[in-house]
Amino acid sequence: MGMVGGGLDAFIGAVHRRAAGFDNEIELVCGVFSASSDKSKATGHALYLPEDRVYTSFEEMIEREKTLPDGVRMDFVSIVTPNHLHFPPAKMALENGFHVICDKPMTLNLEEAKELVKIVEKSGLVFGLTHNYTGYPMVKEARDMVRNGKLGKLRKVVVEYPQGWLSKKEEDNNYKQAIWRTDPAKSGAAGCMGDIGTHAENLAEYVTGLKISELCADLSTFVPGRQLDDDGNVLLHFEGGAKGVLHASQIANGEENALKIYVYGELGGLEWHQMEPNTLKYKTQEGQRIIRPNVGDLSASAKAHWRLPSGHPEGFFEAFANIYRNFAYAVKAHMEGRQADPVYDFPGVDDGVRGLAFIDTVIASSKTEEKWTKFIN
Amino acid sequence: MGMVGGGLDAFIGAVHRRAAGFDNEIELVCGVFSASSDKSKATGHALYLPEDRVYTSFEEMIEREKTLPDGVRMDFVSIVTPNHLHFPPAKMALENGFHVICDKPMTLNLEEAKELVKIVEKSGLVFGLTHNYTGYPMVKEARDMVRNGKLGKLRKVVVEYPQGWLSKKEEDNNYKQAIWRTDPAKSGAAGCMGDIGTHAENLAEYVTGLKISELCADLSTFVPGRQLDDDGNVLLHFEGGAKGVLHASQIANGEENALKIYVYGELGGLEWHQMEPNTLKYKTQEGQRIIRPNVGDLSASAKAHWRLPSGHPEGFFEAFANIYRNFAYAVKAHMEGRQADPVYDFPGVDDGVRGLAFIDTVIASSKTEEKWTKFIN
Amino acid sequence: MGMVGGGLDAFIGAVHRRAAGFDNEIELVCGVFSASSDKSKATGHALYLPEDRVYTSFEEMIEREKTLPDGVRMDFVSIVTPNHLHFPPAKMALENGFHVICDKPMTLNLEEAKELVKIVEKSGLVFGLTHNYTGYPMVKEARDMVRNGKLGKLRKVVVEYPQGWLSKKEEDNNYKQAIWRTDPAKSGAAGCMGDIGTHAENLAEYVTGLKISELCADLSTFVPGRQLDDDGNVLLHFEGGAKGVLHASQIANGEENALKIYVYGELGGLEWHQMEPNTLKYKTQEGQRIIRPNVGDLSASAKAHWRLPSGHPEGFFEAFANIYRNFAYAVKAHMEGRQADPVYDFPGVDDGVRGLAFIDTVIASSKTEEKWTKFIN
Amino acid sequence: MGMVGGGLDAFIGAVHRRAAGFDNEIELVCGVFSASSDKSKATGHALYLPEDRVYTSFEEMIEREKTLPDGVRMDFVSIVTPNHLHFPPAKMALENGFHVICDKPMTLNLEEAKELVKIVEKSGLVFGLTHNYTGYPMVKEARDMVRNGKLGKLRKVVVEYPQGWLSKKEEDNNYKQAIWRTDPAKSGAAGCMGDIGTHAENLAEYVTGLKISELCADLSTFVPGRQLDDDGNVLLHFEGGAKGVLHASQIANGEENALKIYVYGELGGLEWHQMEPNTLKYKTQEGQRIIRPNVGDLSASAKAHWRLPSGHPEGFFEAFANIYRNFAYAVKAHMEGRQADPVYDFPGVDDGVRGLAFIDTVIASSKTEEKWTKFIN
Repeated sequence: MGMVGGGLDAFIGAVHRRAAGFDNEIELVCGVFSASSDKSKATGHALYLPEDRVYTSFEEMIEREKTLPDGVRMDFVSIVTPNHLHFPPAKMALENGFHVICDKPMTLNLEEAKELVKIVEKSGLVFGLTHNYTGYPMVKEARDMVRNGKLGKLRKVVVEYPQGWLSKKEEDNNYKQAIWRTDPAKSGAAGCMGDIGTHAENLAEYVTGLKISELCADLSTFVPGRQLDDDGNVLLHFEGGAKGVLHASQIANGEENALKIYVYGELGGLEWHQMEPNTLKYKTQEGQRIIRPNVGDLSASAKAHWRLPSGHPEGFFEAFANIYRNFAYAVKAHMEGRQADPVYDFPGVDDGVRGLAFIDTVIASSKTEEKWTKFIN
Repeated sequence: MGMVGGGLDAFIGAVHRRAAGFDNEIELVCGVFSASSDKSKATGHALYLPEDRVYTSFEEMIEREKTLPDGVRMDFVSIVTPNHLHFPPAKMALENGFHVICDKPMTLNLEEAKELVKIVEKSGLVFGLTHNYTGYPMVKEARDMVRNGKLGKLRKVVVEYPQGWLSKKEEDNNYKQAIWRTDPAKSGAAGCMGDIGTHAENLAEYVTGLKISELCADLSTFVPGRQLDDDGNVLLHFEGGAKGVLHASQIANGEENALKIYVYGELGGLEWHQMEPNTLKYKTQEGQRIIRPNVGDLSASAKAHWRLPSGHPEGFFEAFANIYRNFAYAVKAHMEGRQADPVYDFPGVDDGVRGLAFIDTVIASSKTEEKWTKFIN
Repeated sequence: MGMVGGGLDAFIGAVHRRAAGFDNEIELVCGVFSASSDKSKATGHALYLPEDRVYTSFEEMIEREKTLPDGVRMDFVSIVTPNHLHFPPAKMALENGFHVICDKPMTLNLEEAKELVKIVEKSGLVFGLTHNYTGYPMVKEARDMVRNGKLGKLRKVVVEYPQGWLSKKEEDNNYKQAIWRTDPAKSGAAGCMGDIGTHAENLAEYVTGLKISELCADLSTFVPGRQLDDDGNVLLHFEGGAKGVLHASQIANGEENALKIYVYGELGGLEWHQMEPNTLKYKTQEGQRIIRPNVGDLSASAKAHWRLPSGHPEGFFEAFANIYRNFAYAVKAHMEGRQADPVYDFPGVDDGVRGLAFIDTVIASSKTEEKWTKFIN
Repeated sequence: MGMVGGGLDAFIGAVHRRAAGFDNEIELVCGVFSASSDKSKATGHALYLPEDRVYTSFEEMIEREKTLPDGVRMDFVSIVTPNHLHFPPAKMALENGFHVICDKPMTLNLEEAKELVKIVEKSGLVFGLTHNYTGYPMVKEARDMVRNGKLGKLRKVVVEYPQGWLSKKEEDNNYKQAIWRTDPAKSGAAGCMGDIGTHAENLAEYVTGLKISELCADLSTFVPGRQLDDDGNVLLHFEGGAKGVLHASQIANGEENALKIYVYGELGGLEWHQMEPNTLKYKTQEGQRIIRPNVGDLSASAKAHWRLPSGHPEGFFEAFANIYRNFAYAVKAHMEGRQADPVYDFPGVDDGVRGLAFIDTVIASSKTEEKWTKFIN
């Protein structure tokens, strides 16, 4: 693996590195960790990389690595830069024969996303997108239960993602995470909705297997002077008739990272909270069952994404690692000319397009006086 | 107290009687418990009432009781019939000098509600409305914290009220509670939104002290053949700029009575769940505090609505009893020509009008293609 | 009902009155509410009792009431005094033909308890003991599940009852509840163990159907100068081979009233918390089921002790009211010469003896250097 | 790092490897993963180790590695074998200049433990013991709060560790984890008490800073035919006067890995659950505060053991990784002749001796008829 982005001061770079290394399937062999050559070198040094594998631009990395022998050169590129720097390295890597795994949202805008779909298709290579919340085993179990009809035909979906960390104008406090996320040039057209609304959208579509067909959005910027939305409430219509609500916020004061989903069908309901990720509640009019990893009879998918005895909590890193491990399995299968085992699924380029389309749709909806805006796709 | 409605098979009648009697301030002295004279008598008998105080119509009750001497005749009327039978007895009681406490929604429609306001004003009598969820001590504490600026200026409100008991067509199963609630002639223009949406609306306005100014509603009827909405999702705008979401459902399969509210302001947030009513969560970026009845420093209002040592759970009946006790205090104050103590507050005719206006507004909004509908008032 | 004790400043008196009146089966008709005649009268007045039914001693009450006609005179006596004043009125009431319901522990010591058993037997009258925690519907369900073999043969029982309200020397702060509870003359030989340890013991024996056969106790008085134990840890052996732990404390700083029980058998386990009384957790190696009142298939016993739709929380008062209502049913059955329906069970004189024996046993055990002390019975 | 034990079918081996690699401070360079040479090779192969660094005995590994140049040879040995195979490789490694990190309990018996203390002292090398539960940041915070007097003088400690996975005789089901844990030759003198009772003991002493001075134990073997205890209840006395209860079980049917601790002092109480490790409850009579990683003002220690933004759950692996990382820091400091920073603490040889002494004491206590057995040290 070669990494683009993820300098020492970038929280998400270290997450990706730990996730990639977690199951001993992936080794970091090179990287360009910062636009600053000094920072890139310092990061490479701290990571015990040889100096000649620490680059100063992704272009240099891709060109140089291409010349290295099989088994030495990187097999794929991991892109963990701010959003505006996803597309260029992804495109170049794919066009030079490297698989790609990329942070979300996939690109800066929908146009790039659609172009990337074509590039991936043309390349025949593996593309992974780190919508990490779908890597939790209980999310897998939820999806499996929906697929197997345990809930019957779905009627209602509520997905909520409140955070409070941008309740004040942190972008003025030299807080790096806040600065780029509130800057349209780096983050894209949406703030909160791009950063976490897309996670909520992805989770809802993943668990239910349904696609949003139209929506009605009310985006807000509560903190004066902020350039992008920091809160949004959205009514949802899904293909097939289910309805729902999605709300996300970065000004929900005192909330940490409280992504939750509730799904209701003709036969029962499900509830899952990211902050207690190892509990899935299954409710019917006969009572409630608590579903937990490694307890009782679970789907093959839930089993394949858990490593410990029951009651030994896995968390965010392990869910993230599931995405990386599954991506690595797919890369391996590709190298060996095999089909990858579908139980090891991971988000890809289609999820990426949906995410950018979601951003465009909520923004369009938020600006119009019409109630319903068709999901732009 | 004389009661209108509340026969032996009516769940809510027994709730009102227990709530009324709970603090030994109110005695049931007469009633007309059913449109059926036999049922009314049977109920009166079961309640150990003298036969001559069990009536066959509310008109008879009001006229007869008027003739009884002070201290013997009822002081007020409690109305616990289905919605279409709220207005007529309320009007007649008030016009004959009896105070009134009435179940919600206050009337069958907004017109009646507005007329009732005038009747109450003209009478100078006390009118109470049993929006019982505002009777919980931790709801009182939440309101007090908002009022005292603990949350700063409010930004976002999420109120949700999922139930699952109408997931099937229970109105065809000879289930009395389901039958009248899904019949527009008895329930009014809304189903789920009238029955529980109004509780959510009332709770949100009560806790925040803010009024909804406009909304965007998406009501649904998921169970085929049902006459009224059984689910609704609503975007909210409040006066002063706060925004929010209200969703309520009676097809949220497996949910019991899961009314919850989340309020976020510039300084902090609050969270309260009706099913664990003795816990109020107060969240800021400094951490979370669990607020509980009779623990530490609480508002006068929270203290005035709790009876036990800490850790001895009070619940639905006690919150309901708070409404009745406070109403009784107001009646007593009226009799004695005093101002009632504002710490013993209870919902009244204005809350009733807001509730009916909310019903009309969500129905109007749900039918239009325009995004925002002004709150009809 | 005539009441002994329960003046206006006594918390538990008001609990008994509300519980007694809750289901409209019991009416308070007379009482002696305090050793002080003035206080007794003031309480009777506040309760709207006629002056001639407010007495100055229990002897006077019992003698006078005996002379009143059927239907007017009290049917039973409710005793809510501190522990040293349980036995005398209970004895006299029973010997004069009145049924008795009494707060726990039943008497000041085991001798009185054993004598009371004989008096009750001789009288043929109904005796109830307000071990109120067994009145919760989910406790009934737990007992039913154990009886029906859902857990298999029991192996382990953990019952814990931490409170923190005596962490400081409150008995020096003119705090009435603290004063008598820490005074051996009024409370008996044990403090914490008598006040709440007996509840824990009663709950464990009730739910499991097993009797403690021997135990090893470590009682402590942590607050300097306090006369009785304020904390205790006890190892338990049950008849039939199950083992367990009971610990109770009134110096568990910050705890409210956190009575909990865990029961494990060959086939599964149960968990119940008094502070969230409407949830019973049933755990097996196949997963966990959440059992809730009025949801799904429950025992006749759980159903008979719940009044509301699901999700409408009942609490401490309602559990207490279940004891009173069941006692009232038994009194009624006695009057009518019928057997009472066993589904409406309530604690009685045998539970009372077990409680006093438990107190004597833990005190004896705490003083000896031998590990195991046989349960004194 | 060179590893002893941890073949592919051993759950704990993979845990140690992931924990060791997590923070990019430690690299696995060699190992002897099984007594079977084939299995050892297969594991080495799966871990991408060079063949010549996969050994067939720990003796061979230690001797061979000694001959390798600095920077190539392993720096320390990680021992993850069943208990009877801890002491021999630890001794040899230390005597040959290698630091050691070892699974718990430290040795098969107390004699070995005491001998190991001397060996470690003589060697001057770093010794770590993976009592991993002390690696959680909220456990660190709890210890810090106790140290800083937030609870005042401690009075009561309750530590409980229920598991249910040995409710049936799994050792007859070819279940490797069960087989060695119930075999005295491999596990030592205790079963449940050695496997998880020692974790509870270590956690209690770690958080409180108090040492158990005497105890009264009641160990049981509930599953017929099992050779070692599968359940135990223990009364505790601590130096300085605090008292407590420790109970652990592997037949608590339906429990997963429910280690919990409650600590009460003169000023407040703490509660922590391993299965929700990122929540620490701090309770006083003024109310309850929820303490969470990366929220508000925390101790340096809590901060130093957390990697993510708040609300992104870390779990078992991360706590385990904290032990390894801190051990690595100490090794590094040793290499560089520096004192290690005490904020990066980890369990060591003294904890190991306490653990074995605890095992001996509970077994001795369980066999005697005397109530209190002094803690053997």
